[in-house]
Amino acid sequence: MSEYTITVVKNENPKPKPASDQLKFGKYFTDHMFIYDYSEAKGWHNPRIVPYQPIVLDPAAMIFHYGQTVFEGLKAYRTKEGHIQLFRPDKNMERLNLSNDRLCIPAIDEEFAINAVKHLVHVDSEWVPDAEGTSLYIRPFIIATEPYLGVNPSSMYQFIVILSPVGAYYESGINPVKIAVENEYVRAVKGGTGEAKTAGNYASSLKAQEIVSKEGYAQVLWLDGLEKKYIEEVGSMNVFFKIKGEIITPELNGSILNGVTRNSVIELLRHWDLPVTERRITMEELDEAYRNGELEEAFGSGTAAVISPIGELAWGDKKLIITEGQTGEVSKRLYDTLTGIQFGSVEDPFGWTVKVK
Amino acid sequence: MSEYTITVVKNENPKPKPASDQLKFGKYFTDHMFIYDYSEAKGWHNPRIVPYQPIVLDPAAMIFHYGQTVFEGLKAYRTKEGHIQLFRPDKNMERLNLSNDRLCIPAIDEEFAINAVKHLVHVDSEWVPDAEGTSLYIRPFIIATEPYLGVNPSSMYQFIVILSPVGAYYESGINPVKIAVENEYVRAVKGGTGEAKTAGNYASSLKAQEIVSKEGYAQVLWLDGLEKKYIEEVGSMNVFFKIKGEIITPELNGSILNGVTRNSVIELLRHWDLPVTERRITMEELDEAYRNGELEEAFGSGTAAVISPIGELAWGDKKLIITEGQTGEVSKRLYDTLTGIQFGSVEDPFGWTVKVK
Repeated sequence: MSEYTITVVKNENPKPKPASDQLKFGKYFTDHMFIYDYSEAKGWHNPRIVPYQPIVLDPAAMIFHYGQTVFEGLKAYRTKEGHIQLFRPDKNMERLNLSNDRLCIPAIDEEFAINAVKHLVHVDSEWVPDAEGTSLYIRPFIIATEPYLGVNPSSMYQFIVILSPVGAYYESGINPVKIAVENEYVRAVKGGTGEAKTAGNYASSLKAQEIVSKEGYAQVLWLDGLEKKYIEEVGSMNVFFKIKGEIITPELNGSILNGVTRNSVIELLRHWDLPVTERRITMEELDEAYRNGELEEAFGSGTAAVISPIGELAWGDKKLIITEGQTGEVSKRLYDTLTGIQFGSVEDPFGWTVKVK
Repeated sequence: MSEYTITVVKNENPKPKPASDQLKFGKYFTDHMFIYDYSEAKGWHNPRIVPYQPIVLDPAAMIFHYGQTVFEGLKAYRTKEGHIQLFRPDKNMERLNLSNDRLCIPAIDEEFAINAVKHLVHVDSEWVPDAEGTSLYIRPFIIATEPYLGVNPSSMYQFIVILSPVGAYYESGINPVKIAVENEYVRAVKGGTGEAKTAGNYASSLKAQEIVSKEGYAQVLWLDGLEKKYIEEVGSMNVFFKIKGEIITPELNGSILNGVTRNSVIELLRHWDLPVTERRITMEELDEAYRNGELEEAFGSGTAAVISPIGELAWGDKKLIITEGQTGEVSKRLYDTLTGIQFGSVEDPFGWTVKVK
């Protein structure tokens, strides 16, 4: 048996599956999970698919105290023909290792991790829903498990993958959201962990999110942590603006997450010969473009919602109503094309989709 | 039975206790732990002392994904007379609630939390070691336990307290350490979570720590995240400098942890009529004072090591050798007095110590 042989213990008590049109995001989980252990002596070892079950850890396990953990998020899609496919899993595993490096977690074999995900999705393939816009959300994550209260990298880890059948992120399909610019709290700063997909970034974002949601905003738009001038990202998405025909997204600077959907949007726009630029952009510039009638569209990009048009942006007392609060043309085209490629109804000229068995 | 009645299930299989002179930091745990549950319907409920046991959580529990967690660290000390006492537990629980607020975790009744800690320490009182410099480290922490992958505050939490008998932080007693100024990585920034005691702050610090420890430095000195000019704190301690007789510590600014030992040092220095100032201080100013022969002492303050003299500070190519690499007079006096109060051998004029039954 090779070190890469995945053992499988089948779940003898499968759960009832929720109806495809009753799904919510991240509430239901499938019958199996993937587990892979790390110790200093053995490296990554004992890859296995087992019945979905609780994680049992010593109360001193380092994950509970010092947050040494990373995660990824991707999806499996069921095509009209009934095949199952993933979208760019190589980008997720590449990023997982970049996050690992920042968090002092030992690297994972990326190809093997993709195979493990495929294997797990195959075992739980009946859980991949088939209603319009639904998919199987895949959550790989790594946690530090050594029971030790010293502030040091852990000597033990678990790499775990769980699966969750999810509905369309917005029940009514693609729909403009209202976003508030955050002027007090900071998500990340250069030299911090903003580029890594690690728990602490999300923990620190909860407070700002809680405040604006009381005021009716879906998410916050984060500015840079240094001058609170430059636009960074929206809640848990990257962000794009169309100004006088040019599509602009903040350049990766060490504190912005290198989104897989962000990258796909950029490649798609280039493929369409639409002008797209990665550069710094301030709220001042955006507001000026708005006042000059030059801000044509704004949208977020991410795995969960794919493309999320921004219909309103609140910046202090100012309210920018974008594309008359409607979904813009480029947003719609990107959404249709990306979801089309993901679900196999639109040709994939990039080789982004990967079949599961 | 009041909502505050703590039920106790005794551990019928107590572990052998490590010898008092063999203790390490955070490696051994006692026979019992305290658990307190939170749900939206019941609030904080079911406080209980149970045998030390694993935490069992759904793999989708939010602590594993979004890092919504806070913790505290304090100690129980055995006096020469055999009594057990805590040091300023009210300050820890006050800070726990400030951390809770920043992390969107429901507040804890501070007085009840202190009582829970006292009760638990009493149950495991045989674990409070009596060798010179040893103590019982107390780790209260709260974790988000709702199984849900949405980025939202959890609707379920556990407040847990575990205990660990610990040796003197430095085996040879108070000893100067070598510290490297960190110029690349950032621990925290205003608007972030630096002031809160939350896992993500420690996760983000591991990388810098790993790099300098290879070069022989014990910890890093963090500069502010904005300009990398102003001194913030040392590794997991606050920091003080004595320049021309004046003792200076960076003022609390939202990104510096409000240390209990820091506060005690300030109060003690004032009690002694020594000049102590909380203000911003740059590495430039420190280096200039050093070159002028005016930097007389430097030390860190924290629960684990109490006072940790800094014998060498590396800043890029520069090496500042402080107090000839020895322990300074004020550092020594603070260490002796603070540990004296903690262990009950020095009078406590402040009412800082709290007896356990």
